[in-house]
Amino acid sequence: MSYAISYQDILSAADQIKGVAVQTPLLENPALNELVGGRVFIKPENLQRVGAFKFRGAYNRLSRLSEDEKARGVVAFSSGNHAQGVAHAAQILGIKATIVMPKDAPELKLANTRGYGAEVVLYDRYNEDREAVANRVVSDSGATVVPPYNDPYIIAGQGTVGLEIAQDLQAMGIVPDQALINCGGGGLCSGAYLALYENFPDLDGYTVEPEAFDDVKRSLESGKIEGVDFGARSVCDALLTPSAGDLTFPIMHGLELKGLVISDDEALDAVAYAAIKLKLVGEPGGVASLAALLSGKVKAKGKTTVIVISGGNIEPAQLQECLDRSVA
Amino acid sequence: MSYAISYQDILSAADQIKGVAVQTPLLENPALNELVGGRVFIKPENLQRVGAFKFRGAYNRLSRLSEDEKARGVVAFSSGNHAQGVAHAAQILGIKATIVMPKDAPELKLANTRGYGAEVVLYDRYNEDREAVANRVVSDSGATVVPPYNDPYIIAGQGTVGLEIAQDLQAMGIVPDQALINCGGGGLCSGAYLALYENFPDLDGYTVEPEAFDDVKRSLESGKIEGVDFGARSVCDALLTPSAGDLTFPIMHGLELKGLVISDDEALDAVAYAAIKLKLVGEPGGVASLAALLSGKVKAKGKTTVIVISGGNIEPAQLQECLDRSVA
Repeated sequence: MSYAISYQDILSAADQIKGVAVQTPLLENPALNELVGGRVFIKPENLQRVGAFKFRGAYNRLSRLSEDEKARGVVAFSSGNHAQGVAHAAQILGIKATIVMPKDAPELKLANTRGYGAEVVLYDRYNEDREAVANRVVSDSGATVVPPYNDPYIIAGQGTVGLEIAQDLQAMGIVPDQALINCGGGGLCSGAYLALYENFPDLDGYTVEPEAFDDVKRSLESGKIEGVDFGARSVCDALLTPSAGDLTFPIMHGLELKGLVISDDEALDAVAYAAIKLKLVGEPGGVASLAALLSGKVKAKGKTTVIVISGGNIEPAQLQECLDRSVA
Repeated sequence: MSYAISYQDILSAADQIKGVAVQTPLLENPALNELVGGRVFIKPENLQRVGAFKFRGAYNRLSRLSEDEKARGVVAFSSGNHAQGVAHAAQILGIKATIVMPKDAPELKLANTRGYGAEVVLYDRYNEDREAVANRVVSDSGATVVPPYNDPYIIAGQGTVGLEIAQDLQAMGIVPDQALINCGGGGLCSGAYLALYENFPDLDGYTVEPEAFDDVKRSLESGKIEGVDFGARSVCDALLTPSAGDLTFPIMHGLELKGLVISDDEALDAVAYAAIKLKLVGEPGGVASLAALLSGKVKAKGKTTVIVISGGNIEPAQLQECLDRSVA
């Protein structure tokens, strides 16, 4: 079976981002272990540059551009974290970045993206096609489009999340039973699981999506790329993608991942649990795998489970609301 | 010069707590580095068991008790995190714990202490002497008093925070210029700095206290143990100690530490910064060293600075209030 990327591409991405991206630790929380009756390893990508794993793929992609491409700049369309990842990677590499963002993206993400020196172009998430808007920007500038997930370098960059998890677990002599990873378009899941399965072939790998954006779950079941309803909504703004990509899905399908879904309430409860119990700030979409674990979507008792907190860019006001929730 | 503990005692404590305490990572945040113009390494002890470094000393102390002492139980008097540390260590070791806590201690800390199976006895922080209250409990039960800081095993246990920082920095080939560590009674500062100076003799070590509880700063300047005003108040409830101990102060004085102070506003701003920018939940006293760094109490530009987030047990309501603060 031939995928868009190989394990070697992830090793290469790890070299490429070394010393620039944060090598986030692998955390274990005894109270969470006791709660689920097993061992849970948490990869906190909220501690990554720009507060989300997205920096890894963006930097891997942008740093591979030719000098000519760098001179023409890059453009990205994103609901937030990819935008920040591209903007910050471009800033570090001295590349002009234009970011096409939905008008209703969290204010914090808009401000942060501009803070990294990018030009932001807004569009209507529900009535305009973001790729068409981005293409207009491209035709004006000749800039390179940096897709959020359906790109080999992006997938390989996100794959370093799985590589680091595997290396840290192997250093401890631990073989995980299962992993739960938040899933939007599948960049993180396809890359990270490719690295995890290379090292732990008997792993049970799960994608975690919001209920209304369960396209990957249905795609894994049907064997072909399924989409979501155009009017679907979720508080997990980091995971609002219409479908997986034709590069990410074959990997997820080939690895025989299984799909899990969580409700918005479960996501918001997990934000509260992460802040109050784990002392980690995560955004709703960023704690989807924690939400799936806490709400018992998989059996964790007696098992070793890996979860990823993929991002922490939550509005202070939304975090305040979540803190009103009681936690286990 | 002879101190209450030696570096060997810290190495021994590290063996004692190994596999029980969390070996917290050493974090670096590129945005914080850019903000201060230097490198900052953060030791996040909010990720420790019970959400604070206090578990280290408590477990080291309790695990050294004789079987006879263990059978009679332990008693501790504490404004919160030490209470949780002792309660949880006692729970793990199967020892009965009685905790004497101030009536106005944060509800979260009271609830958590009881949650670890300890019996809680309340007293009036401003009108009663907590040691006298604790001694009444002791005379009834024959329990061993576990002091919050003025004890060799406690100091050595907290010293493992500094040992882990030193080991992680040495693995990266980094020699820090300075360190800032939150200071109440000096258990953490005396132990951690003993380990840090053993490895980095040219370090500039600072204690960080709330303005109204600047007794260690004044003690370091005068060369003898100074106290605080009986009616002093601060939001940094983890750092409200009347004076350093006769075991902790000689170490801090002998190492020639320098004292820094922060205002309550600076502490609350640092809570907001930690949550929004670092994605870490810290309590006001737990982020004192971050507050000192952010408010420019030391020159950090061009330097490598170590700070400790010593605890994260903040009431959700207080965290909500802090999130209204704008951050750098």
